Order: sequence, then C-alpha cells, then structure tokens
Amino acid sequence: MDRLHELKNPKEIITAMMLKDEFSKWLDIQVDRIDIGHCSLSCTVRKEMLNGFSIAHGGIAYSIADTTLAFAANSNGYQSFSIETSISHLHKVQESDVLKAESKEIHRGKKTGVYHVNVSNQQNELVAIFKGTVYISKIPW
Amino acid sequence: MDRLHELKNPKEIITAMMLKDEFSKWLDIQVDRIDIGHCSLSCTVRKEMLNGFSIAHGGIAYSIADTTLAFAANSNGYQSFSIETSISHLHKVQESDVLKAESKEIHRGKKTGVYHVNVSNQQNELVAIFKGTVYISKIPW
Amino acid sequence: MDRLHELKNPKEIITAMMLKDEFSKWLDIQVDRIDIGHCSLSCTVRKEMLNGFSIAHGGIAYSIADTTLAFAANSNGYQSFSIETSISHLHKVQESDVLKAESKEIHRGKKTGVYHVNVSNQQNELVAIFKGTVYISKIPW
Amino acid sequence: MDRLHELKNPKEIITAMMLKDEFSKWLDIQVDRIDIGHCSLSCTVRKEMLNGFSIAHGGIAYSIADTTLAFAANSNGYQSFSIETSISHLHKVQESDVLKAESKEIHRGKKTGVYHVNVSNQQNELVAIFKGTVYISKIPW
Repeated sequence: MDRLHELKNPKEIITAMMLKDEFSKWLDIQVDRIDIGHCSLSCTVRKEMLNGFSIAHGGIAYSIADTTLAFAANSNGYQSFSIETSISHLHKVQESDVLKAESKEIHRGKKTGVYHVNVSNQQNELVAIFKGTVYISKIPW
Repeated sequence: MDRLHELKNPKEIITAMMLKDEFSKWLDIQVDRIDIGHCSLSCTVRKEMLNGFSIAHGGIAYSIADTTLAFAANSNGYQSFSIETSISHLHKVQESDVLKAESKEIHRGKKTGVYHVNVSNQQNELVAIFKGTVYISKIPW
Repeated sequence: MDRLHELKNPKEIITAMMLKDEFSKWLDIQVDRIDIGHCSLSCTVRKEMLNGFSIAHGGIAYSIADTTLAFAANSNGYQSFSIETSISHLHKVQESDVLKAESKEIHRGKKTGVYHVNVSNQQNELVAIFKGTVYISKIPW
Repeated sequence: MDRLHELKNPKEIITAMMLKDEFSKWLDIQVDRIDIGHCSLSCTVRKEMLNGFSIAHGGIAYSIADTTLAFAANSNGYQSFSIETSISHLHKVQESDVLKAESKEIHRGKKTGVYHVNVSNQQNELVAIFKGTVYISKIPW
C-alpha cells in the first residue's frame, strides 16, 4: 500500500488535534477552514482574556495565531513543531471582539516551513501579524 | 511638587495591573519579584493549558513571558505597550510543570525599550526565550 | 504656509538618502520604484558578497531589505528609524543572481510602522522574507 | 576509524570558512576567539558602510552578527545554516567605531540551535542584539 495514501487528510488531523487541544477549547476557537497548508480560525474575546489595561492580553492574539500555525503546518500529514515565532501587535483588541486568524504558507522545505498568520477583528482591521517557523518531522499523523 | 515623586512605585503599579489582568489571573501567575525594570513571575501548567500534542500550548509560555514584559516595562512609572515580540520554544512543557519567567532590561531609551525574558521549568531547564520591544508613553501610572 | 506642503516628496527624499548611502551604493542598489510608503529595489550579487559556503552572505539579502524598509518608511516625509527587524532565509542566493526587494506597508501608526519586504531572485523565487518595525520621528526631511 | 575523530576542529573549520567568505573579508572581520559553539569577531566601520543618515547601515551590524552566528554554529563540526534571525538596533554606529560581536549558545538540539549575538562598540555600549536559529545538517566539515 502506498505510504502517501495512508496519510490522514487535513480534516482528520485537525479533528484529532482539536480533540486534545484543551487550551484552544478554552479559547473557544472555531475552525472556519482547513486545507493542506492553510487554516482559518476564529474566537470571541471574553472578560477572562483581558490584561492590566482591560484590553485583550497579547497572549490571546498570539495563541489563536499559534494554533492556526500548528493546524496549517500539521495539515500536510506530518507532525510539525513551532521553533520560532514573532508577533507584532498593531491594534487594541477589546472584550467581545471577534478575532479571525488566517494562515499563508510562505515556504515549505523538506525540514522547515514558514507561515504568516494575519489576525483581524470583526471590522476587518488587522490587529496583529504573526510569523512562524516550524520543524517538519517524518512522523505521520 | 516634583513630578517624579508623584510616580507610583513598581509594587503599586503591578498591584494595579494585576487587579485587572483577568488572563494572568486565569493563568494563576504569581509575582515572585518586582523592581524597576525587572520582574519574575511563575505559574503551574494545568490540563486546560495543553495543546493537540498534550503538551503546553505555545501560547502559555508566550503569555507568561508577555505578562513579565508588561510588568517589567511598566514598573518604571509610565504606561508602556508591547509592539513586537518573538519567542523561541526550546523544550517541551508538560502538565504540572512550574514555569518561571524572568526579565532582563536590555535597553531603555526615551521612546522604546527592549527586554529579554527567559522561561524555565522546575528543573531550571530553559523552555523558551522571549524578546519584546515596547513603546514607552508619557502617561504616568 | 501649510506644513504639509513643505514636506519633500518621496523621490526627493530617496535621492537625498541614496546620495549619502555609501553602503547601498557599494551594493549597487537600483531604485526601481518609490511611492509614499512603498519601495522596490534591485541589485546583482557579486563575488565579494559571498560567504563561507560560496553563496550570498545572509547580510546581503538583509541589507537590500533594510534599505527598502528605510526608503519606504522615510518616503512619507518624516525621518524614521528601524528598531526591530527579522529575516527568514528561504532559498540559497548565488553569485550573479539579481535580487529584487519589494516592501508592503502593513501598519502605519503615529509613532511606529510595520513593513514586510519580500526578496526574490530573477526566477521570481522568494529567497527571503523580512519584517521591520520603525520608529517615526517628527523630524521632516 | 571513529567518525567523531575525523571532525575538523573549530579553528580548522573557521579558517576554511573565512577563506571563502569574501563578504566578511570586505567587512575586514577579525576572529578574536573561536571555540565549539562560541565565537567573537570584530571590525571597524568604514565610510563605505554608512547609510543615508551617515551612520552605519543596519546591514553592517547584522552582517557581523550573522557571520558570528555562522562561525559559532558551524564550529561544532557539522554544516549549519541560518533559517531565521532577528536584530534590534539599539544605538547609532558611527564611522570608525569598532564593532565587537560575541555569541552565546542558548540551545543546541539535534536539528536546530539558537544563538544570541551581542554587538557592542569600543565604549562597550550595546549597539545591537541579534538572535539566530540554525538548522544543523548531518554533513561534517
């Protein structure tokens, strides 16, 4: 049997990941779209996600972007791990804002991949841009 | 009256920030040390902080580091906001691990500051390194 | 007299910058396009730009991207300074390759701006992606 | 014969790299110290390294830091390649300044490594901090 055909498809992989991903469940992340190398997620900012300025903690936009990265990178069938990420916070995020995170696969080599994730709010304002580099293992899902 | 003498001290500022910081409370972050330009925090990884690999979500180490950055940068008396941050994940973080985050003020200019935050576990293994650039406003605490 | 009308236009600013920019001249950087907030540059990789693997030194792609950032950010009329930049090297660059760098203004606030710069070769392969955060001063050109 | 004993030592590796590294020669980089996982370099800023503000181009501090990263990471015996780097420019660098770059190995895994490089001037002022992630191949020097 062909090795390639044994690989799980993106939806199977993300369903398996989401099942265990307790933190993404706490964030109440919704999977809006998943394809090979691509993922869109959304979540609504709750009071318990706010920081000392009563706006969303920087970790919230980071976390939804990091989940988006993980889902996009793992959707290809091999387990992939974030090694370096950066995020620029561009716009304040308020309670009740709906964050949407969308990935773009910039580069996919044999060992590493690079993804951009844009995080925007319900007015389509960009609130953060995220860049992530992943290590691609040979372990299939 | 001297403007400088009106500024709140680091402990007053961090107490005020922590009071509102609902997400750091959810993370159950403990303030171990706070001085001007310096902060040490800790928290314990709970099941609801895990990701699809059943290890701590990358957003957890990021979030404790980002709170450490915020507290260190704001402790000087003026409101400061993160504009760009990056984190390298070096070591898996497991449920029940105790994360300690400690800041180092690399640079403090008039408008911007740069901080490193090391995140380590209970075995003193470095699990993540974080770099943050903040914008320093003229708004006193 | 209106302050805005006194500001130099993008071409005047970039001509003034390029005149002094000895390193960009050494790189033999050509200005392909300049508009407010946008810049495209190109240069050809020479032997003296190679590293210990006989491919282009990482500093070459960085430098053309950094000049692109500087020109794009300053083209708005106010002196702007890079405070934090990152670059992902995606593809080897060889001697005689023609590098093209093109900026995208992601965010422009009152004090800071964020730009992406894509660096590609003569086959339109992306060789590096660059992100830069600038501080925008009130000093007009 | 033991594979390990065939590996070149750090000085042999860096001598071999420096021999081909035309750009580091143009920068007139001096190797002050080289050990496994550690490297210190220095160079003097010349007029042809200045930018449109008549201070050192950001690419100069980046390039000396990137060479330092390359030498430190390759000194272990296996060919290593930079995949993601970031630099914060903290202090203006002037013509005739002597830049010193010193690496610190933060993490060395099987596949990837993370290094910090501090760049300071002749007054021991920190002018830039650099972080680099490398991919470690199985190809011996």
